Amino acid sequence: MNGAESLLRTAAAAGIRVCFANPGTTEIPLVNAFDFEAGIRPILCLFEGVCAGAADGYARMSGNPAMTLLHLGPGFANGIANFHNARRARSAIFNVIGDHASWHLASDPLLASDIESLARPVSGWLRSADPAGSLGRDAAAAIAAARTGMIATLIAPHDAQLRETAETEVVETPRLPARPSAAIVEMSARLLSRAGKSALLLGGDGLSERGLRAAARVAAATGCTLWCDTFPARLERGGDLPVVQRVAYFPERAIEEFSGVSTVVLAGTRSPVAFFGYPGVPSRIVAERTETAILARPDEDVGAALEDLADALGAAAVRADPAPPAKRSDRTSGPLTPESVAAAVVGLQPEGAIVMDEGLTAARAYFSAAASAPRHSYLALTGGAIGQGLPCATGAALACPNRSVIALQADGSGMYTLQALWTQAREGLDVTTLILANRGYQILAVELARAGIAQPGAASRSLMAFDPLPSWTQLARGFGVPAVAVEDATHLWRELERALAEPGPHLIEVPI
Amino acid sequence: MNGAESLLRTAAAAGIRVCFANPGTTEIPLVNAFDFEAGIRPILCLFEGVCAGAADGYARMSGNPAMTLLHLGPGFANGIANFHNARRARSAIFNVIGDHASWHLASDPLLASDIESLARPVSGWLRSADPAGSLGRDAAAAIAAARTGMIATLIAPHDAQLRETAETEVVETPRLPARPSAAIVEMSARLLSRAGKSALLLGGDGLSERGLRAAARVAAATGCTLWCDTFPARLERGGDLPVVQRVAYFPERAIEEFSGVSTVVLAGTRSPVAFFGYPGVPSRIVAERTETAILARPDEDVGAALEDLADALGAAAVRADPAPPAKRSDRTSGPLTPESVAAAVVGLQPEGAIVMDEGLTAARAYFSAAASAPRHSYLALTGGAIGQGLPCATGAALACPNRSVIALQADGSGMYTLQALWTQAREGLDVTTLILANRGYQILAVELARAGIAQPGAASRSLMAFDPLPSWTQLARGFGVPAVAVEDATHLWRELERALAEPGPHLIEVPI
Repeated sequence: MNGAESLLRTAAAAGIRVCFANPGTTEIPLVNAFDFEAGIRPILCLFEGVCAGAADGYARMSGNPAMTLLHLGPGFANGIANFHNARRARSAIFNVIGDHASWHLASDPLLASDIESLARPVSGWLRSADPAGSLGRDAAAAIAAARTGMIATLIAPHDAQLRETAETEVVETPRLPARPSAAIVEMSARLLSRAGKSALLLGGDGLSERGLRAAARVAAATGCTLWCDTFPARLERGGDLPVVQRVAYFPERAIEEFSGVSTVVLAGTRSPVAFFGYPGVPSRIVAERTETAILARPDEDVGAALEDLADALGAAAVRADPAPPAKRSDRTSGPLTPESVAAAVVGLQPEGAIVMDEGLTAARAYFSAAASAPRHSYLALTGGAIGQGLPCATGAALACPNRSVIALQADGSGMYTLQALWTQAREGLDVTTLILANRGYQILAVELARAGIAQPGAASRSLMAFDPLPSWTQLARGFGVPAVAVEDATHLWRELERALAEPGPHLIEVPI
Repeated sequence: MNGAESLLRTAAAAGIRVCFANPGTTEIPLVNAFDFEAGIRPILCLFEGVCAGAADGYARMSGNPAMTLLHLGPGFANGIANFHNARRARSAIFNVIGDHASWHLASDPLLASDIESLARPVSGWLRSADPAGSLGRDAAAAIAAARTGMIATLIAPHDAQLRETAETEVVETPRLPARPSAAIVEMSARLLSRAGKSALLLGGDGLSERGLRAAARVAAATGCTLWCDTFPARLERGGDLPVVQRVAYFPERAIEEFSGVSTVVLAGTRSPVAFFGYPGVPSRIVAERTETAILARPDEDVGAALEDLADALGAAAVRADPAPPAKRSDRTSGPLTPESVAAAVVGLQPEGAIVMDEGLTAARAYFSAAASAPRHSYLALTGGAIGQGLPCATGAALACPNRSVIALQADGSGMYTLQALWTQAREGLDVTTLILANRGYQILAVELARAGIAQPGAASRSLMAFDPLPSWTQLARGFGVPAVAVEDATHLWRELERALAEPGPHLIEVPI
């Protein structure tokens, strides 16, 4: 057995099942090792940004670490933007980056670069394997780190992959995340029970079914409002689940929403920060005078913490009535707008759907409308690095082959990693992509207006408009995904219903 | 005037004319500043990897620094692979990366990351602008550095862009590159005049017309052979230009070619290194016993050095007869092979064409065939980070609007940055792309065979084959580029002739 085989066997024994891969010459021993380790299926992506985003989506939905195999510094670099999103989502990802043989690096071959410098900003754990060491042991350490909710990156020189070894390693069972002390629970209970408006901010596992039901008990007992991050990694929604509000994107509005709140308790998230800094607007949404307490940090057992809090308050279980299912007569018609598109998706998304939302300005109506949708998982763009949606939907579909995936995708962002459509076609994934095509980078127009520039000149307009307009239906068909463009809401309902009913990927271009 | 305007005015005064851009909210003041600085045209690319590769192609062909404008760490990261190629090409590029306002960074907003760590591996010059300093002065320092043949990266916080300033800066005229001393010229002349086989290895400016004509005089006087890097940044070729051999890609063959050489003189390049390290094969192509001398380093005046050397040898000018132009009757027919494709391109490429070669395994026959083509510039994949071809061709076409650009593009590599086709369509660029479609990552099959694996298993085969096969004609049309797939060599000659005759971009899918 060589180092490459030892690495894969260790990963397979630790429960890793898929590897999103785009390998090259320095990874040949690992490529070959896949033929001898049936426990891990390599999944080819035609661009590393797709590997990274798919790993993120897989990790969010499977609860199991995802693995990637990437080619040297430049190959890894192509994945950094989506690894940035995955880092913000606290997704468990085990990256393996092949490198030149250690004895070859000293000659500075053309593909050599400082991989560690590239990998450090997104990796919670990072190691360049010792070519005389054990890749199995390195992989075990990396996977144990990844399981704590981080990206673990192992740089594997070619000679380390080839080195003969007898070893595979057992990955340590992760320690259970810490449960907050009774004193902390008690303090949170006391704060939320005081007079004045209070808010419970949820993130991470606080947005699971368990977390949400406990949070609803807390809200019923104390009158606090329930909030989630603007861009949650995974939020369970719909059906009879408790409804949480989302912190507003623009800081002026978010600050206003929290201005009357005297107490904030954080469970699985941090105090919210404005997405961008605007002159004269504070970075922090919650005012300094607001008393803020941490019930549970993101790496703690947030679900248990919320249950403990509800118990400490003596709160009873809360039952919500799910919204009635949409009727055929509810179908909207007329022009395609964010609102009519949201109505169609909410009306048709099946029970148990996974909705990946990188719709940005064009999907703004969906989130609030979907509170009354059937039970589903909602995934957001966690780090603001656009190009996450199509890959993340791809990974989510691989993690949950029996669930329908719907990608709400802005056209500008979708362009970054459109190669994900090919992997969807190849794997026959049940992903329905709605390209919400507003024909440009609308966010730039919004931000220019916010900066006081009402009439942008020709040069800045040229940086916003997609002229000529790309044809997403042709692009999708080029990758083997059936596609159609719709013209009005009636047409959208019909095509979306058809796409959701048929197995395999579909794309619907929705001009807005 | 604010910092953003000061930056652009300084750059325009320094002769920068284009900026390959994909900005976001942190770059709004710079976006707006383009409306007030007519000297620099912003060129929108739908993915930052396109910005980076286009900047590289522009710099190689214009002799003037290219500028980019990118959005924070993830936006820059999307360009790293092509910046890696540009670094290896010694292309002059001035990057501006917008960043959060400095006062906002302390709150760790979601899009924050360690931009310096990401930028350092590809940047010869790197600075995070002081928000209380002058962006004009920073830009002047960056552009001066870029002009010496490197990537200069300026991180520009939002508040630095907004800061009121009166200053624009004058970029220092670069010092002329050093000319080697008479002693060094004399030593090189003596070494090349000794008995035994000798070789003159050319890179950088040694591959310009001036460098090549001087090198040919040296060869005629000394009997040395002329060589260029395996992947030259820019090589002038064809017509009556002297022919140079290319160092072979696989080290076994290259080592054999240099095994009988007793003297090597380097002019504008370094001693060649194997692209990858293979067990038992040396990293360095030139044996240790071979005497090696440096006539001129890449940052010196290589053309002048070669002329001095030729003069020192008392060498007369050499005149080569250009190959006769291809006749219509020379047109090949039959199946599409690397050889028949090469014959068609060589037969039809017009005088003064720019040929960007990322054809990899499928274009292997082109280089030697093109020695007899009309005069042209040949651009190669300099750093091995695939996805360079389509963007680099785009930038070259913008630099040389009166020259025809031909991109020989492997299908797997082309997939990385296919969004470049949109910029070609938008700008109406005269680029003809030949997708040499061998339907997979053939290099993996080659390397598995070299590693002794003649019969790869199903898992490793799944990492090589493009199944389903993407349709490049549909993808190209989706971006607004007319496209056709050809079936045999006759068909290719016809369609290539048509594409070269018509203005604007075209794509021809060539299954091989």
